[in-house]
Amino acid sequence: MENLYVIKIGGNIVDNPALLTECLAAFAKIKGQAILVHGGGKLATSLAANLGVEQTMVEGRRITDAETLKIVTMVYAGYINKNIVATLQSLKVNAMGLTGADGNLIKAHKRVHASIDYGFVGDVDEINVGLIQKLLAENIRLVIAPITHNGEGQVLNTNADTIAQSIATGLAGSYQVHLIFGFEKEGVLLDVDVPSSLIKHINEPSYQKLKADKVIFEGMVPKIDNAFKALDNGVKSVIIGSAEKMNELINGTTGTTITKT
Amino acid sequence: MENLYVIKIGGNIVDNPALLTECLAAFAKIKGQAILVHGGGKLATSLAANLGVEQTMVEGRRITDAETLKIVTMVYAGYINKNIVATLQSLKVNAMGLTGADGNLIKAHKRVHASIDYGFVGDVDEINVGLIQKLLAENIRLVIAPITHNGEGQVLNTNADTIAQSIATGLAGSYQVHLIFGFEKEGVLLDVDVPSSLIKHINEPSYQKLKADKVIFEGMVPKIDNAFKALDNGVKSVIIGSAEKMNELINGTTGTTITKT
Repeated sequence: MENLYVIKIGGNIVDNPALLTECLAAFAKIKGQAILVHGGGKLATSLAANLGVEQTMVEGRRITDAETLKIVTMVYAGYINKNIVATLQSLKVNAMGLTGADGNLIKAHKRVHASIDYGFVGDVDEINVGLIQKLLAENIRLVIAPITHNGEGQVLNTNADTIAQSIATGLAGSYQVHLIFGFEKEGVLLDVDVPSSLIKHINEPSYQKLKADKVIFEGMVPKIDNAFKALDNGVKSVIIGSAEKMNELINGTTGTTITKT
Repeated sequence: MENLYVIKIGGNIVDNPALLTECLAAFAKIKGQAILVHGGGKLATSLAANLGVEQTMVEGRRITDAETLKIVTMVYAGYINKNIVATLQSLKVNAMGLTGADGNLIKAHKRVHASIDYGFVGDVDEINVGLIQKLLAENIRLVIAPITHNGEGQVLNTNADTIAQSIATGLAGSYQVHLIFGFEKEGVLLDVDVPSSLIKHINEPSYQKLKADKVIFEGMVPKIDNAFKALDNGVKSVIIGSAEKMNELINGTTGTTITKT
């Protein structure tokens, strides 16, 4: 089977024009099939502040109300997505930017939670694998914004890590899928302030120990949980590391590689 | 050859949720291949006002400066485009929303003008006909936002009528293309305030007379010029009329049909 790289880049990359440019240049150099999933970044937050749209937090979680949804749809699917696509086109990558609504790419449902109404937040139900395969066959590189839809006319704000994991998993039957989480650090670090403390390899037993020792905590936990979910569902490898060193992550010379055993 | 309907809906439709809903329901009922091109509407103007971004006018023409470009990219390619796509998906239309940057769909150049710098405004150079044909063959209905790119990483604000005309023209060799300009009126009217004064048919000689008599003026002139340009380049028919009566426009029971002779 052909290799497919599903690469997620986080908000800290999207927010930093110099880092984003380097990262897209690296993406353009990847050989073979690749899909880019981008996060949101701070532009939506600052736009909301400029427009006087207050960000509602419930039990420490951000709520996507109707006005916030409008803003994230504009920023993620409009500004960020189209500028990434235009930059990639200038690098001779045939990029196409889509949300989950486009071609029914990612169907989701509004999050159901016992005590918190997250608002217009979507949890992924289904990936349109057939459409992705057809576009890949045309050598189109998809650039996916973290917006999905429910099939009933409602767009939904959706976690980009989960989208990347769901796409990687959905395509694991047709490609050798490598899921890469690119961010601003070298990978998973023993000491978050020391780049040289990179943990080169994590498997299930070592993950449990790193969690128990509080080396891995907060935002990294759902990221690595997503990684194991992908591996459990046929994804070949998951790599976490520096977004602008994508090709080094792919050839294994940097980053944290996660495997089951 | 198969029929293809290239339908442009204007800003006054996009701005009016009830009218837009009716219009998309009509679009969903069209038999055969169809492409929707949407205009911008007032949301970008009101967002600019809310953000304190002043609209610069030079010799009566609006200038797209960097901040305005950011706003129109967000509003047209993000909010408007994705909500239209999600609504069409709920109507079981396999819609996919694209800008000219996506898949290099529409290449343009920054407008060159002897005395006015329009800013980030694009004039269309080239349509990626092959990509459109492939997506049509997958029964995907494209929903195109009026944003193009220059191939060098720059997105550009582009007139939606011109995009519709360019796409219609580009596909005229492969389909029997019918170009429809949908707006809030019944068609071209002898008296702009009297819907029953609809002119059912315009050809080149009658257009010259209507222009000389000032029956056709202002914004309708470039629209009809675009219509004749399309007819000169192989488009089968051009129809101007009420956006929510799309199917009646197609079967000829309402609207103004434009032909060469």
